Amino acid sequence: MEASVQIKPYKKDCEYSYALGAFPTFELLKKRPEQVMGVYVHSTFTERAKVEALCAEQGIPVWNNDKMIARLSDKENVFVIGVFRKYEEQLHATEPHLMLVNPSNMGNAGTILRTCLAFGIHDIAVITPAVDFFNPKTVRASMGAIFSLRVQCFESFNEYRRLYVDPMPERALYSFMLTAEQQLTVENCPKPELYTLIFGNEATGLPEEYAGFTNSIIIPQSPEVDSLNLTIAVGIGAFLFRRN
Amino acid sequence: MEASVQIKPYKKDCEYSYALGAFPTFELLKKRPEQVMGVYVHSTFTERAKVEALCAEQGIPVWNNDKMIARLSDKENVFVIGVFRKYEEQLHATEPHLMLVNPSNMGNAGTILRTCLAFGIHDIAVITPAVDFFNPKTVRASMGAIFSLRVQCFESFNEYRRLYVDPMPERALYSFMLTAEQQLTVENCPKPELYTLIFGNEATGLPEEYAGFTNSIIIPQSPEVDSLNLTIAVGIGAFLFRRN
Repeated sequence: MEASVQIKPYKKDCEYSYALGAFPTFELLKKRPEQVMGVYVHSTFTERAKVEALCAEQGIPVWNNDKMIARLSDKENVFVIGVFRKYEEQLHATEPHLMLVNPSNMGNAGTILRTCLAFGIHDIAVITPAVDFFNPKTVRASMGAIFSLRVQCFESFNEYRRLYVDPMPERALYSFMLTAEQQLTVENCPKPELYTLIFGNEATGLPEEYAGFTNSIIIPQSPEVDSLNLTIAVGIGAFLFRRN
Repeated sequence: MEASVQIKPYKKDCEYSYALGAFPTFELLKKRPEQVMGVYVHSTFTERAKVEALCAEQGIPVWNNDKMIARLSDKENVFVIGVFRKYEEQLHATEPHLMLVNPSNMGNAGTILRTCLAFGIHDIAVITPAVDFFNPKTVRASMGAIFSLRVQCFESFNEYRRLYVDPMPERALYSFMLTAEQQLTVENCPKPELYTLIFGNEATGLPEEYAGFTNSIIIPQSPEVDSLNLTIAVGIGAFLFRRN
C-alpha cells in the first residue's frame, strides 16, 4: 500500500478524471490500464484483493483514503475510485460511427455510450459545444463503457466531414429528425456497408440544415408525444442498423 | 384571477400532486381536466392566455403566486404548475400491457411512460414495491405522458394474473431477462394478438421465477456491457412488438 495521494474534485479543465464505483473502475483497469494514475480503495471494500491483483500486474498504486472517497463520490455509495489521465482518441475511418451534435446532459451521454457498446458501435463523434464526456458523472452513467470506445470531438460537422467523409465517400449519413418524411421501420432499415448515425440536442434536435446533406429519417411515433427521449431514439437506431 | 392558494411541497401520502412546466401542464389540462384543482401561473409566463382559456372552459381556477412556483419547482426553470388530485386507474383487459416489476428510479419511470405512449402502449402494470408514479419528478420526466396512460399498481404478479391473465388466457407473457436463451430479433419477434411485456428492476432485473411462467427473452447485446439500460430495453421491446 502506497502513501495516500490527494486530488481535487473534478473540474472540466483537470488533466485527470475518475471512475466512481466498482464496475466502472474494473472497466478502466482492464481497458485503459496505461492511463490509470491510481485507485482509491475504501477500508470496507469487499473486492480489495481483486483490485490489488490487477493493479500489481500493471504497477498501478493502490491508495487507502476513506475521506477522499467520501469527498469525491458526492453522497453516492462508492467504495472504489479509479483515477486516470484524460486522453484523446481518433475514430476508426472504416467503422460505423454514432454522432452526437451538441449533447447537453451527462446522464444521457453516459447511457448512450453504454448503449453503443452493447450494440457494437465503438466510434462516437461529438460536435461541440457539448457536455464533458470525461466528467465523472458521464463516466459513471456509461458504467465504464467509455473506456471501450473511441470518442472524438469536432468543432463543426465540416471538420468531421474533411476527416471521415471526404476520404470515404461511400460513408452513408443518416440524420434522425422529427421533420423527416422517411420513416425508419424494421422492414426498410437501410443496410449500408459504412455509415454514421446522427442525433441532435435533447431539447432542440438537429439544425434543419442537416436535412440538406444527409438522409433524414424519423422513428415512427405517436403524435401524442412531443418526441422520443434522445437515448431511446439512439437505442432503436443503433439496434436496427446493427442487427446484421 | 382567484385568490391564491397555498399547498405544501409533495410527499408520497399527499392526495394531490402537480405537473411542473408548460408541456406537462397542458397535457394535464387536455387529458385529465376533471382532476385539476388549479394552475399556478408565474407573472412572467408567456402562455398565460392559453392557460386561462383552457381553464375557463373547465371552471378551473388560475392562481398568481411566483413564490409558490419557486418553492415547488426546486431550482428548475418552471413558470406554470398544474395541481391535480391523484386518481386510480384500471387497465384495459383487451389491450397490450407493459409491466414494470419493482422499478426504483423516477426518471426512468417517466421516460418509460413517455416511450410507451410514443409506441401506443397505454396500459402500464406496476408490481410494488415501486417508485411513486405520481411524484412530480416522475410526472415531469414523462413530459405529461402519464395523463394519457392507465397506470395500475399490484401487490404481486398473482394479483395481476387473477385480474388480467386468468380471464384472458390468450394473453401472452414475455419477460425480458439476461438469463433467457431466446434472443429477440427483428426477424423472430412474436406477433401475438394480446400480450404483456415484463421488465424488472434497474439493478437486479426480474426474479428468476418469472422464467417459469412466462416466455423469457433477451435483446441481443455485447458481452462487453453488464446489461442495457432499463429504459433502452423497454424502448426496443415496445418498438418491435408494436411495429404492426
